[in-house]
Amino acid sequence: MKKITEIPCEDNACPVKKTASIIGKKWTTLIIRELLEDKKSFSQIQKALDNISPKVLTERLKFLEGKNIISRKVFPTSPPTTEYQLTKLGVKMKNVIVAMAEFGESLL
Amino acid sequence: MKKITEIPCEDNACPVKKTASIIGKKWTTLIIRELLEDKKSFSQIQKALDNISPKVLTERLKFLEGKNIISRKVFPTSPPTTEYQLTKLGVKMKNVIVAMAEFGESLL
Repeated sequence: MKKITEIPCEDNACPVKKTASIIGKKWTTLIIRELLEDKKSFSQIQKALDNISPKVLTERLKFLEGKNIISRKVFPTSPPTTEYQLTKLGVKMKNVIVAMAEFGESLL
Repeated sequence: MKKITEIPCEDNACPVKKTASIIGKKWTTLIIRELLEDKKSFSQIQKALDNISPKVLTERLKFLEGKNIISRKVFPTSPPTTEYQLTKLGVKMKNVIVAMAEFGESLL
């Protein structure tokens, strides 16, 4: 327990704060969750998160790409298709998602 | 892995989505983190999260109280003091915070 709380929260080195800056944005954990099993195209992710607008999804995917959580591959089809997958770093988010799922089971 | 992804995300029963609705709000995980070790007063929490305005902190504490994650006790001092602590449900958030801390260590 000490390990988590020994760094003062105002310190930007706080690892909980760092992770919160990623999963604090709406949809990010759900996008990562969609990619846990396999890579997916933009439209597959969009279909899975049925309330998300293409604009917001594009923003979030760029954000996660910028954080090196996901990577993007464009295929020269017509129209071009884009495929997203978790990076090595992104795969490490699995434990966070699992803990979130377990906690979520306790919620009404 | 299947367990996490077998419920479609658009379903509000998705446990990851439920947890995301709590920790997706800025400061909530950091407030919970502050209470992992011990109960704290409003001003102790405020001091620990040094960028937070009293207005936002009040909002977040009410939100977490409404979700049954924390409980509030008011003492009839002058001025009254308020003490916050994790509920039984709130204590279960520990695993999420630990996973977040571990992942945060991987981030630059």
